Amino acid sequence: MAVADSFIISGAGVVAGAAYAPVLRVQPRPQLPSGGSVTDDEKEGEIKNFTDAVATVQDILLNKAEKSKGHAKEVLTATAQLTADRGLTRAVKKLIQHGDAADWAIVQATDNLVTQFERLGGLYAERTTDLRDIRDRLIAELHGEPAPGVPEPTEPIVLLAEDLAPADTAGLDPELTVALVTELGGKTSHTAIIARQLGIPCIVSVGKALRQIKNGTPVLVDGAAGTIQANPDPGKAKAAVANSREYLNRVRQWRGPGRTADGYSEQLLANVGNGSAAEAAAKGESEGIGLFRTELCFLNAPEEPTVAEQAEIYRSVLAPYAGRGGHTHVVIRTLDAGSDKPLAFANFEAEENPALGVRGLRLAKDNPNLLSHQLDAIAEAKNGLDVDVWVMAPMVATVSEARSFAAECRKRDLWPGVMVEVPAVALKADQVLSEVEFFSIGTNDLTQYAMASDRLSPHLTELNDPWQPAVLSLIQMAAQAGLKANKPVGVCGEAAADPVLACVLTGLGITSLSMAAPALPAVGLQLGEVTIAQCRQAAAAAVSAPDAVTARTKAATILGA
Amino acid sequence: MAVADSFIISGAGVVAGAAYAPVLRVQPRPQLPSGGSVTDDEKEGEIKNFTDAVATVQDILLNKAEKSKGHAKEVLTATAQLTADRGLTRAVKKLIQHGDAADWAIVQATDNLVTQFERLGGLYAERTTDLRDIRDRLIAELHGEPAPGVPEPTEPIVLLAEDLAPADTAGLDPELTVALVTELGGKTSHTAIIARQLGIPCIVSVGKALRQIKNGTPVLVDGAAGTIQANPDPGKAKAAVANSREYLNRVRQWRGPGRTADGYSEQLLANVGNGSAAEAAAKGESEGIGLFRTELCFLNAPEEPTVAEQAEIYRSVLAPYAGRGGHTHVVIRTLDAGSDKPLAFANFEAEENPALGVRGLRLAKDNPNLLSHQLDAIAEAKNGLDVDVWVMAPMVATVSEARSFAAECRKRDLWPGVMVEVPAVALKADQVLSEVEFFSIGTNDLTQYAMASDRLSPHLTELNDPWQPAVLSLIQMAAQAGLKANKPVGVCGEAAADPVLACVLTGLGITSLSMAAPALPAVGLQLGEVTIAQCRQAAAAAVSAPDAVTARTKAATILGA
Repeated sequence: MAVADSFIISGAGVVAGAAYAPVLRVQPRPQLPSGGSVTDDEKEGEIKNFTDAVATVQDILLNKAEKSKGHAKEVLTATAQLTADRGLTRAVKKLIQHGDAADWAIVQATDNLVTQFERLGGLYAERTTDLRDIRDRLIAELHGEPAPGVPEPTEPIVLLAEDLAPADTAGLDPELTVALVTELGGKTSHTAIIARQLGIPCIVSVGKALRQIKNGTPVLVDGAAGTIQANPDPGKAKAAVANSREYLNRVRQWRGPGRTADGYSEQLLANVGNGSAAEAAAKGESEGIGLFRTELCFLNAPEEPTVAEQAEIYRSVLAPYAGRGGHTHVVIRTLDAGSDKPLAFANFEAEENPALGVRGLRLAKDNPNLLSHQLDAIAEAKNGLDVDVWVMAPMVATVSEARSFAAECRKRDLWPGVMVEVPAVALKADQVLSEVEFFSIGTNDLTQYAMASDRLSPHLTELNDPWQPAVLSLIQMAAQAGLKANKPVGVCGEAAADPVLACVLTGLGITSLSMAAPALPAVGLQLGEVTIAQCRQAAAAAVSAPDAVTARTKAATILGA
Repeated sequence: MAVADSFIISGAGVVAGAAYAPVLRVQPRPQLPSGGSVTDDEKEGEIKNFTDAVATVQDILLNKAEKSKGHAKEVLTATAQLTADRGLTRAVKKLIQHGDAADWAIVQATDNLVTQFERLGGLYAERTTDLRDIRDRLIAELHGEPAPGVPEPTEPIVLLAEDLAPADTAGLDPELTVALVTELGGKTSHTAIIARQLGIPCIVSVGKALRQIKNGTPVLVDGAAGTIQANPDPGKAKAAVANSREYLNRVRQWRGPGRTADGYSEQLLANVGNGSAAEAAAKGESEGIGLFRTELCFLNAPEEPTVAEQAEIYRSVLAPYAGRGGHTHVVIRTLDAGSDKPLAFANFEAEENPALGVRGLRLAKDNPNLLSHQLDAIAEAKNGLDVDVWVMAPMVATVSEARSFAAECRKRDLWPGVMVEVPAVALKADQVLSEVEFFSIGTNDLTQYAMASDRLSPHLTELNDPWQPAVLSLIQMAAQAGLKANKPVGVCGEAAADPVLACVLTGLGITSLSMAAPALPAVGLQLGEVTIAQCRQAAAAAVSAPDAVTARTKAATILGA
């Protein structure tokens, strides 16, 4: 038997773990028409073709939704709804009435909608992937082609794609799709999020090199190293998978609460966006919610939800943790909207630099009701529930902002804190913390400002790293202020989900780590394998390192990780 | 005689000093047509009307230019040139050929150009004021109305305006126009810059309240307090002006070098944008150039200037300080362009947050030649000139960026330093400074990042204040690193031009202050009235203050300022 060439290509590993299986590419997207017309006689039939296609595609998506659960179910249901969106349907029908063929009408109508969404920017812009997916599904259906996207494998495969849309990945079975590898995408892309939820290794940003691997080629995916080895030695590949599986088993078996090998407590909490995520998190090992992002409840609202409606949402997040006692608590972050995260019911001025603009608590200056309604609703929600509720404001920059936010909270008997995202707050940590009861560090924004580099820029990923020693020293300032004042200082950015960095943060004096719930056991396992002295030693080495790579290497060596 | 009502309105005082005189408003802008046509027979005559108007307006502007000097002369000459701009002329003639009346053609053609400039953004967008000014002058001329803008007073007046265009203010005589007050504008607006150059008090951002003051009303303008008092008590007003004049006289008579009352040296340097500004600065009390902004030489260049051309520009800035010996030096900052300061010959990708994007030294990654040509040109320029040349890179964020920039400089025997604008550099000051020979703190950007607030946002001016204690503590970190390493750490942002803040910076350990040359004597005078112990005490009080206002108040009290 001829030995096939073995070669390695690499990308950005976003979910650790090893997998070994033949690759399968997603079904390519249909060719898009750039014109096409129907005669007056054909119009009625063409409209029927279109509505039939909508019904079929919607059925397929709803069927898939039925077989899925959790976030996947939500995504598929939302995409199914968007397929039959009235605005879209009306626009397509109108174009057919004008004499365009159905497929050409769909292309134009979705293009229009995509432009509108892109102009709205922020989270709207992210939904354009869904729109394009719907367009392709409808056109494939009209052309009688197989549905684009993921085929349903019968044997385990490694799924390759240029990029993955929510509807592609929703309903994936991790027993059959054992790893995801894409040419595009970043650490926070949809693909990465889904892989994390499925618990399968994932590598993104591989680039066009990925096309070198033909369908059916066996590959070894190493999500930690970010490498894909084509035609590996089967024995070694299987051993790597077994090692990885053994590690993942230990992760799965880990039980909280978070503590080091020598018993130093570190509270592990979950970041959630809605009540069902809170319920899921409460079933796991988390000791509470470290970040409830309230803006997700507002983003699609045509008008500001009433206080009662908001209270209901808050209650759904608080309820799963009620009656637990101990240190259990739920941290609610007030609205973090702005010109980059627009709300349908509030007009924000376009800004030259939205990330440095009027966002977070700064909005309360011109819209005091938005904040006071939120606080009223939180107070109402906790009424009668036996759970500690903490409330924090995003984008605080000064002592006086912290003071006035705390006053609003205390009026309603709420426990106030602030996010540490603006470098100034870490620099004045003692004074700001004296105004509130706790800090929660948002490492993503803190890094972006400390390094003056847009967290979404693809050109500045090296700077945008929470391992940057300058960022660690700001975290240290905030943590030290907490130790001095005997007030909790948590981290709720992505940094908390990195098991090695989690140990460094613990060593810096951070008292809680909040992350996407699925990331929690790996962090807990790592913490349980080191002593607090090792954490402190690793922290000191990382803070004083000259650069991010050295910081990580030194910390990992000290921690034996 | 009836006593007229006295009332006070206030705005943002941008140039200190008192003035007492009746007010005069600028001649209002002409009514703009929203249509208008000419017959085929009239077209030729209309084109002649237009070219006549261009010639007349250009003559007026060139005449004014002749009577002016320095920056005013440049502005007027540039505006005169823009009046006869070929693109504009061609567009207007084409519209007249299509049947539009000349005034209506001018409106359309300038609107188009304004849109284009605004799309280009950054410095181009700022030139739109000039374009609108030209439009108004041409239309007034066509309509036979007096030229809009500033009338030529025969008695001293306080000039009131909604806002002032460069062509309005160029050629103003400070003996006759004794103060400027505008409804709009900010600290860095054109009005503020001109007033600073003329050395007359100036208040901006007064708002529509300014309209309460009728032409001819005597007012007392207090540029330090930012107040305009209508119908003041004449005796008190005259005393205030005399006091202010006495102070300004002392400022004018101040002679360098910079030092405190007890003889502690603080180097005072000038910020310049071209050779003629350097020449002017060298005639004053500055000990050198603390910031030469090279990008101003590149902004209007259709293609990258050759190394020889660049060397000539650098030489024009170095020559005025050659042969002085002592501590005299000239600091050249390499190109600080980016998507917010675009270059005609380099395409920068549009960015979501240009201030956090690929700018300054970050551009060198994809355009290494831009930087190496600059350094080659600087090396060539200093050849044979007896002057210390220092070179610094903008937007450095890490130790390794500083290291690689320094290596490029040392290869050419240039003295390397970095700007401290990114908070990370102040936080890692010791390590970054060990790679280079000096620091220069850009307080404007450092403040913007430390406070996470866009320096150009009109809504965030309170946060964007170098008196913010968090910003002062970053400055302190950089200064301390300099004292430890025995390397100079200067400040070249606007903060250095504030006499009270200048003392605080001196107390923090900053070794040089660089500012617009006209601001230098007031800083020198203030420094000469305090001891270094007072400066240090004021610095300590300001850094530990809870907010910017308290920081300033405490420092001023300690300094007796």
